[in-house]
Amino acid sequence: MIETNPCNKPVNGGSSVPSRVSRQTKPDDTIVNINGVQVGGSEIVIIAGPCAVENREQLFETARSVKAGGAKILRGGAFKPRSSPYNFQGLGEEGLKLLSLIRKETGLPVVTEVMDTRQVELVASYADMIQIGSRNMQNYPLLKEVGMCRKPILLKRGMMATVEEFLLAAEYILHQGNDQVILCERGIRTFETSTRNTLDLSAVPMLKRLSHLPVIVDPSHGTGVRWMVPPMAKAAVAVGADGLIIEVHYKPEEALCDGYQSLNLDEFDRLISDLIKIAQAIGREISVPKPLI
Amino acid sequence: MIETNPCNKPVNGGSSVPSRVSRQTKPDDTIVNINGVQVGGSEIVIIAGPCAVENREQLFETARSVKAGGAKILRGGAFKPRSSPYNFQGLGEEGLKLLSLIRKETGLPVVTEVMDTRQVELVASYADMIQIGSRNMQNYPLLKEVGMCRKPILLKRGMMATVEEFLLAAEYILHQGNDQVILCERGIRTFETSTRNTLDLSAVPMLKRLSHLPVIVDPSHGTGVRWMVPPMAKAAVAVGADGLIIEVHYKPEEALCDGYQSLNLDEFDRLISDLIKIAQAIGREISVPKPLI
Amino acid sequence: MIETNPCNKPVNGGSSVPSRVSRQTKPDDTIVNINGVQVGGSEIVIIAGPCAVENREQLFETARSVKAGGAKILRGGAFKPRSSPYNFQGLGEEGLKLLSLIRKETGLPVVTEVMDTRQVELVASYADMIQIGSRNMQNYPLLKEVGMCRKPILLKRGMMATVEEFLLAAEYILHQGNDQVILCERGIRTFETSTRNTLDLSAVPMLKRLSHLPVIVDPSHGTGVRWMVPPMAKAAVAVGADGLIIEVHYKPEEALCDGYQSLNLDEFDRLISDLIKIAQAIGREISVPKPLI
Amino acid sequence: MIETNPCNKPVNGGSSVPSRVSRQTKPDDTIVNINGVQVGGSEIVIIAGPCAVENREQLFETARSVKAGGAKILRGGAFKPRSSPYNFQGLGEEGLKLLSLIRKETGLPVVTEVMDTRQVELVASYADMIQIGSRNMQNYPLLKEVGMCRKPILLKRGMMATVEEFLLAAEYILHQGNDQVILCERGIRTFETSTRNTLDLSAVPMLKRLSHLPVIVDPSHGTGVRWMVPPMAKAAVAVGADGLIIEVHYKPEEALCDGYQSLNLDEFDRLISDLIKIAQAIGREISVPKPLI
Repeated sequence: MIETNPCNKPVNGGSSVPSRVSRQTKPDDTIVNINGVQVGGSEIVIIAGPCAVENREQLFETARSVKAGGAKILRGGAFKPRSSPYNFQGLGEEGLKLLSLIRKETGLPVVTEVMDTRQVELVASYADMIQIGSRNMQNYPLLKEVGMCRKPILLKRGMMATVEEFLLAAEYILHQGNDQVILCERGIRTFETSTRNTLDLSAVPMLKRLSHLPVIVDPSHGTGVRWMVPPMAKAAVAVGADGLIIEVHYKPEEALCDGYQSLNLDEFDRLISDLIKIAQAIGREISVPKPLI
Repeated sequence: MIETNPCNKPVNGGSSVPSRVSRQTKPDDTIVNINGVQVGGSEIVIIAGPCAVENREQLFETARSVKAGGAKILRGGAFKPRSSPYNFQGLGEEGLKLLSLIRKETGLPVVTEVMDTRQVELVASYADMIQIGSRNMQNYPLLKEVGMCRKPILLKRGMMATVEEFLLAAEYILHQGNDQVILCERGIRTFETSTRNTLDLSAVPMLKRLSHLPVIVDPSHGTGVRWMVPPMAKAAVAVGADGLIIEVHYKPEEALCDGYQSLNLDEFDRLISDLIKIAQAIGREISVPKPLI
Repeated sequence: MIETNPCNKPVNGGSSVPSRVSRQTKPDDTIVNINGVQVGGSEIVIIAGPCAVENREQLFETARSVKAGGAKILRGGAFKPRSSPYNFQGLGEEGLKLLSLIRKETGLPVVTEVMDTRQVELVASYADMIQIGSRNMQNYPLLKEVGMCRKPILLKRGMMATVEEFLLAAEYILHQGNDQVILCERGIRTFETSTRNTLDLSAVPMLKRLSHLPVIVDPSHGTGVRWMVPPMAKAAVAVGADGLIIEVHYKPEEALCDGYQSLNLDEFDRLISDLIKIAQAIGREISVPKPLI
Repeated sequence: MIETNPCNKPVNGGSSVPSRVSRQTKPDDTIVNINGVQVGGSEIVIIAGPCAVENREQLFETARSVKAGGAKILRGGAFKPRSSPYNFQGLGEEGLKLLSLIRKETGLPVVTEVMDTRQVELVASYADMIQIGSRNMQNYPLLKEVGMCRKPILLKRGMMATVEEFLLAAEYILHQGNDQVILCERGIRTFETSTRNTLDLSAVPMLKRLSHLPVIVDPSHGTGVRWMVPPMAKAAVAVGADGLIIEVHYKPEEALCDGYQSLNLDEFDRLISDLIKIAQAIGREISVPKPLI
């Protein structure tokens, strides 16, 4: 027998799921409550909005439209993790203020990303849910900090993280006393180059079997191409996701960030009406506002 | 600028899709006809059966049951590609004979794998559709040989093949004059270890956009775990697959090969009734035999 | 042509290397000076020490021995990024104090990791070089913070980062005015499971061709198995690395962290004498202290 | 505990190395004898030549030059596995005849690839060693066929194969009675795009520890870029490879295949003189012909 590092083990090759996130510890589904919106129940929740908050018009137009289309939570980045220091880095607190203004108008709870332990308090003072992005999934000081905060957390899977590592990252948050965590599959890095990432939909049933936490899917980052968002969103609903987070921009071709993978407002509306049928086929629902005639 | 090998290019980073498989060459969907069963039209076709033909009882019991459940084509391996020379290698021609006997009884067309150029004629004399397995996707002499044969071909994606390479492999077959090719996504190899492979459902819309050929999905090899086959099969239908190929065994716990990922007969029946609803939700159908009351 | 996300491009498929790290901007090799020890010149520099500082005896015994063996810089983690919240998390500032005590005794400059923007000042007050670990390679607030600090930075490649992303991460640091950056290849994540990571030695000539920054290799994390450290360390020297960072522990079998991949003191000494010969064969050198007769 | 497929196991996570290739079965190194050239002893053997045999002049000029430079075996493809059916497919038997003519002149044994079970006899009648290419590593009928043949086999690692699968493929050959097998690491497929493949040099010590078979490295396919061949070849010697197989072309810019990664004649000569020094540094040797003064 060859000696190898015992760390090299697959998630189910004997290792156990960490205790607080494990379904063995808590058999019932956890419902995460984001200012009245419940994720993890029978309704499939749509989170939508622009990649980055760019300005008042862009955010407000997009927010009003996605609300009318059926989104229950608004997304929008104020602090943006960008591969290059020369790319747009987000509006910072100015972006948070705009998010809070449009929340007041629309009533949509807001989710936005935090990247720095020093900004958790600031972001928490504006956001209804705090997002930990893919690149920070193993940023342990940040996980501990949001674990001590009393806001729901949207934890995105690292693009090269195994299911086991993803659950361990969530465990860091629960370990600090915050059990309001939503897991988000957003595509993993593989050898395939025709898509930006490979959206690993099998992670959804795997995570739901291993853990009691709700699981949502991000088909925008998961594919990186606008035309592929609708089919993958449908597949995500069929496979059992508790929600979707979708990039929508009122003018994708002018977006400062990720316009290439953002739906426009019409595409979003059409997608929701397709998703409603899939949800019904599996015995769940997606609710949309009644038109005011 | 650094010189690098121009071969290192992503499928859409400038390279064009090879001509015969390209949708630009032929905008209309190709319908592949397997002894009267059409794949690529509005009906979603279910292919089912055991991983390997083991004996008369196993094959016949499984075949009769999957037919009653809604399968339109029977699968079953007679020549098995096994990682180890010490594993069961299949019944060979004896297996082909059993397949042909049960076809006569049930009327189900039969698909089975060929691995050796010297056996294409033999396999073609028994099978209604010839499968090229994942490990042989870039076995060019074999692709040429089946390209010269007048039978439909089920071409499985290599577990580490890009979408571009997959289409180039299909091009080898069309280039020999055989355009009756079905593409099958069956999972790719990634760093994730909790599933056997990572089923890349985004390949389905990508392939259908790039090519006119029908695309089906194998959730059994794609996940490697029985309990994950149903959710991934549902997602495959939702994402737009033209069919599914599913491993079913009348006694999975006794299977000589891949029992771990095979559905039993009841699980298969339940899955089909779920899939029918998803198919309807996207405007397609799955037909099942009328019960004889 | 299929529309895809223009972000999906390989490093040399047209994209340019960011300007401050690029060799086109600065053709000459950068020499990084760590309290008098120069990395990036003709001498190959050995950094060695325990994965984590555990206690005074462990650190001091190991440090004295690696110094005698030829190490020029001492490594040792005080803040440890661990996949599980239940693993040993490091001694924190107590560990930094021990590092500073043994530096006073041995004269070895010290490198240690920082994970939190709030601790950069603290760590910088003790360390001679600050390490950004693999999991934080895209922690942009942290990169900016160490970019504003006047200490050399050891930047480890993310286990999922392309060469291009690695250089972009370094650009974040240079962009803040700190050009004392050493790049460290430490293994990438692939489908292979017999090693902990796949040490990508081709990254060394690639990085040195694209950038003027020094490049070192970590064969301990890169392989995850003690017996494989010596052959991979030799290969790293042959391929052109400017240095090595090697985990050494005076009692590996008792280590709280990564003992499985740590060399013991004798193994380290033997390795250095082998590396000296390889260095000579390629026209470089590794110097060791003269024995006191 | 979650049920998963027991096939999802890493090579050393409990599984044993197959018996015939295992070093536990045969502790001593196997020496493979290719018409008098021994691979697996203390001498490091260089195999060189063009990717494909294109014509008499190209082959003969290249062969004479690599012989003078120190190559002990000539490589050259007559049957070429090409991703696209529209690429040059090789000269076929005409290429084999040219290889046999230049062998007569130079005395260099010849290695060339076979892709089709029906051509094993033909290729064996011309070649001194038969190559199984990366894409055919799991072509089991082909492995069985060359296992029944009395020629040494050069088995290249599949670009998607784990070390365990690689050894199982070799086991297929030994199982048929042919123990003259050389294993060749030639790069694996990863997410990195700056190189054609990621040359996994850690596979060399791993394979040599697990098996008694000789292991060589192909830095040409492993990197896909000419300028990276020399540093990776040096690393391969330092890590313990028993030989190298290198693409050399007398006019790389005119090559019909892989010119981008082929060394020219001068580059080959310079590389060998560098490799000789590394070989000496690790206590092995590379011999070159004496110049005729």
